[in-house]
Amino acid sequence: MAAERLVVIGGDAAGMSAASQARRLKGPDELSITAFERGHFTSYSACGIPYWVSGDVEQRDDLIARTPEEHRARAIDLRMRTEVTEIDVAGQRVRALDRDSGETSWTGFDKLVIATGARPVRPALPGMDAAGVHGVQNLDDGQALLDTLDRATGRRAVVVGAGYIGVEMAEAMLKRGFEVTVLNRGEQPMATLDPDMGRLVHDAMDGLGITTVNGAAVTAIRTGADGRAAAVETAGASYPADVVVLGIGVEPETTLARAVGLPVGPHGGLLTDLSMRVVGHDNIWAGGDCVEVLDLVAGRTRHIALGTHANKHGQIIGSNVGGGYGTFPGVVGTAVSKVCDLEIARTGLREKDAHAVGLRFVTATIESTGRAGYYPGARPMTVKMLAEYRTGRLLGVQIVGRDGAAKRVDVAAVALTAGMTVEQMTALDLGYAPPFSPVWDPVLVAARKTVTVLRKAGTA
Amino acid sequence: MAAERLVVIGGDAAGMSAASQARRLKGPDELSITAFERGHFTSYSACGIPYWVSGDVEQRDDLIARTPEEHRARAIDLRMRTEVTEIDVAGQRVRALDRDSGETSWTGFDKLVIATGARPVRPALPGMDAAGVHGVQNLDDGQALLDTLDRATGRRAVVVGAGYIGVEMAEAMLKRGFEVTVLNRGEQPMATLDPDMGRLVHDAMDGLGITTVNGAAVTAIRTGADGRAAAVETAGASYPADVVVLGIGVEPETTLARAVGLPVGPHGGLLTDLSMRVVGHDNIWAGGDCVEVLDLVAGRTRHIALGTHANKHGQIIGSNVGGGYGTFPGVVGTAVSKVCDLEIARTGLREKDAHAVGLRFVTATIESTGRAGYYPGARPMTVKMLAEYRTGRLLGVQIVGRDGAAKRVDVAAVALTAGMTVEQMTALDLGYAPPFSPVWDPVLVAARKTVTVLRKAGTA
Repeated sequence: MAAERLVVIGGDAAGMSAASQARRLKGPDELSITAFERGHFTSYSACGIPYWVSGDVEQRDDLIARTPEEHRARAIDLRMRTEVTEIDVAGQRVRALDRDSGETSWTGFDKLVIATGARPVRPALPGMDAAGVHGVQNLDDGQALLDTLDRATGRRAVVVGAGYIGVEMAEAMLKRGFEVTVLNRGEQPMATLDPDMGRLVHDAMDGLGITTVNGAAVTAIRTGADGRAAAVETAGASYPADVVVLGIGVEPETTLARAVGLPVGPHGGLLTDLSMRVVGHDNIWAGGDCVEVLDLVAGRTRHIALGTHANKHGQIIGSNVGGGYGTFPGVVGTAVSKVCDLEIARTGLREKDAHAVGLRFVTATIESTGRAGYYPGARPMTVKMLAEYRTGRLLGVQIVGRDGAAKRVDVAAVALTAGMTVEQMTALDLGYAPPFSPVWDPVLVAARKTVTVLRKAGTA
Repeated sequence: MAAERLVVIGGDAAGMSAASQARRLKGPDELSITAFERGHFTSYSACGIPYWVSGDVEQRDDLIARTPEEHRARAIDLRMRTEVTEIDVAGQRVRALDRDSGETSWTGFDKLVIATGARPVRPALPGMDAAGVHGVQNLDDGQALLDTLDRATGRRAVVVGAGYIGVEMAEAMLKRGFEVTVLNRGEQPMATLDPDMGRLVHDAMDGLGITTVNGAAVTAIRTGADGRAAAVETAGASYPADVVVLGIGVEPETTLARAVGLPVGPHGGLLTDLSMRVVGHDNIWAGGDCVEVLDLVAGRTRHIALGTHANKHGQIIGSNVGGGYGTFPGVVGTAVSKVCDLEIARTGLREKDAHAVGLRFVTATIESTGRAGYYPGARPMTVKMLAEYRTGRLLGVQIVGRDGAAKRVDVAAVALTAGMTVEQMTALDLGYAPPFSPVWDPVLVAARKTVTVLRKAGTA
């Protein structure tokens, strides 16, 4: 019997995790695996690019978890610099273009994995494609930015966008010795937090010497006589720049899939079932940055481009196409980041998310420290908690602080997954010792205050 | 109508939290509160004493959360240096001895809170009471030890016991410039871990320059010509000592309560119901180090002397005696500690705990890092996980490592509380960013491996 044919489109986290896991379960006699990657690299950490640009990570190759050669050594037929340009769903084949030779060819599949990732949002504004304007989506982008930094004669960096990538790139530019201005379209930086918590990030960035301009919608990149970016323009002002970094976010790359009518959701991502199969297609799976995931708290799909989800997706897809079993139940929306020593974390719903899905809720915000107040190095931490009116069910947590602030959000992520109430959370047996926590962990303090607010609201 | 009378025995975490919370709910017109404390201090952090001895915390008073004066300002009649010597349950009164004046008097109560804490285990061995032999149970003990350290002419410290207090005091003595030998009766240090994980602690202590002797049962403290401790003797050896620190653990202090027949459990602690009322007594509550708590994983009571539980107990008792409502559902056995930069954490059951309560289980142990492997400062972390055979329910987690190892156990503590299976845990949406976690958090890696072991055992 001929081996079953698996084709994977996209050679990064989701695609190559799927290929590797499938290979673990089935040898080449049972399953042939062909993977197409249009770029130069496989299985790299895009999340690590800001730390390579900052100099914290020494070299590009440190970010590569597995090279093409390593994949090939596991009997995966990996075609680099080869872009799939068409999916023939009925004919069970994909057409691929070798970007070096210019040749195209068809490859048949019994099972197909779509892991085409995301593409950066680049608004169609004058000058956006000028030299000196850099995205940081892939390793080539990172190298191009580093080349610009090496060449730059001035020291003014303008970062467009104040989400995760924006604040991480602000830190990177600061560490590279640039004067950093962050242009933020929204009310406060880190729009994935409520504005009252984003305000704390703003203040901390001020303290670090990063200038953040809120409500700053970019209208153009002005270029100099040499054609390179010279300033970033908004309606009201012009910000001179020796380098411009775009951190505006990404959207699912689903051009191929939409061309053949595969189902996409409200955020432009492919829709899958719990086994990560594309809805309506028994032999097509999709995962990583090109799909929407179920938000277990909101009861809706969202688009979240995050390596940890992509790896889980790939692992589950690989299990399922390899004859094993796995499901991805969804996310609660956990994300952590930092700007220098300021840690930022969130999970679950913001106020506006809760409003949007019809949830009535209370909030409480507390200040505490990551260690016993008397222990050296104790630094302030602010925790905001949302709980549902009446039921008292936890809806979300946001944390801004230093010294162990970010990963404390994991406690809330598990509590959200388990559907705990804030009253139940007050009894959680969390680790306590003076170097690691006050006698009441900040998450417990927040839960207690939220319970009090619920009681005052006459609802618990 | 006369105010109801609340009497509290013990002025530390549980007792004064209860008094304070009751006062928040009821004013002096409704509730009189009298609290008796036989020592010199109230509401201090005993867990912080090792860090005061080490010099990390500058002064004793930093460890005091609330002074007697602060309590009195909240209309609590606090009697310091006054020891309750008898409880008259039927007569609803306690007899107290003023330790300065020698006078005794009776005080009536409508409601009684017993928060008598724990006392250090001091084996009845020759020389155990000699000068230069120090427990570290309370602030007076800490001061006495510091005085000995100031006076010591040699630099040899012997720490008896290798549990939490033992390893924390080993760190403190090391920081004070002593050569440290830890005498451990058991197979490996940190008997609250399985021996394979305790071995990692042993190795790390070696690396820090702390000598740990396992299987070393102390037979005597040998004194010198000046009557001060000069060496610690075991069956096979003698360890010269300029100072001896006892870290052998504590047992519930329930002398008063047992004298009047209040119920105690198998570990010598008072037995309470979920509202922290002493079993069989409607008007007597107990909390903190003098009670046993329900281990939610083992389904048995345990004795755990830990400030975080004592504070919760006090808060719940205060709510209940003050006319509010609160319960303490139990613990999952979370504890964290450190020796210098080595972090140690556990929650749930060890192998021998699971055996003892009739649970069949599998284990898996993995190595990972606290950050992305390529991120600066990534250090190794070992995670051991236990899951129930057949059901796959999480039973316990132990972590030894550096760089954010300890508080990761909180994820497992919440999962234990929620009764999650290790398969469910593999899908947890934990925070990921390179400075805070590899793309698969170590807890997720451990859960995945445990699932694999369960499958191989034919049980999942």
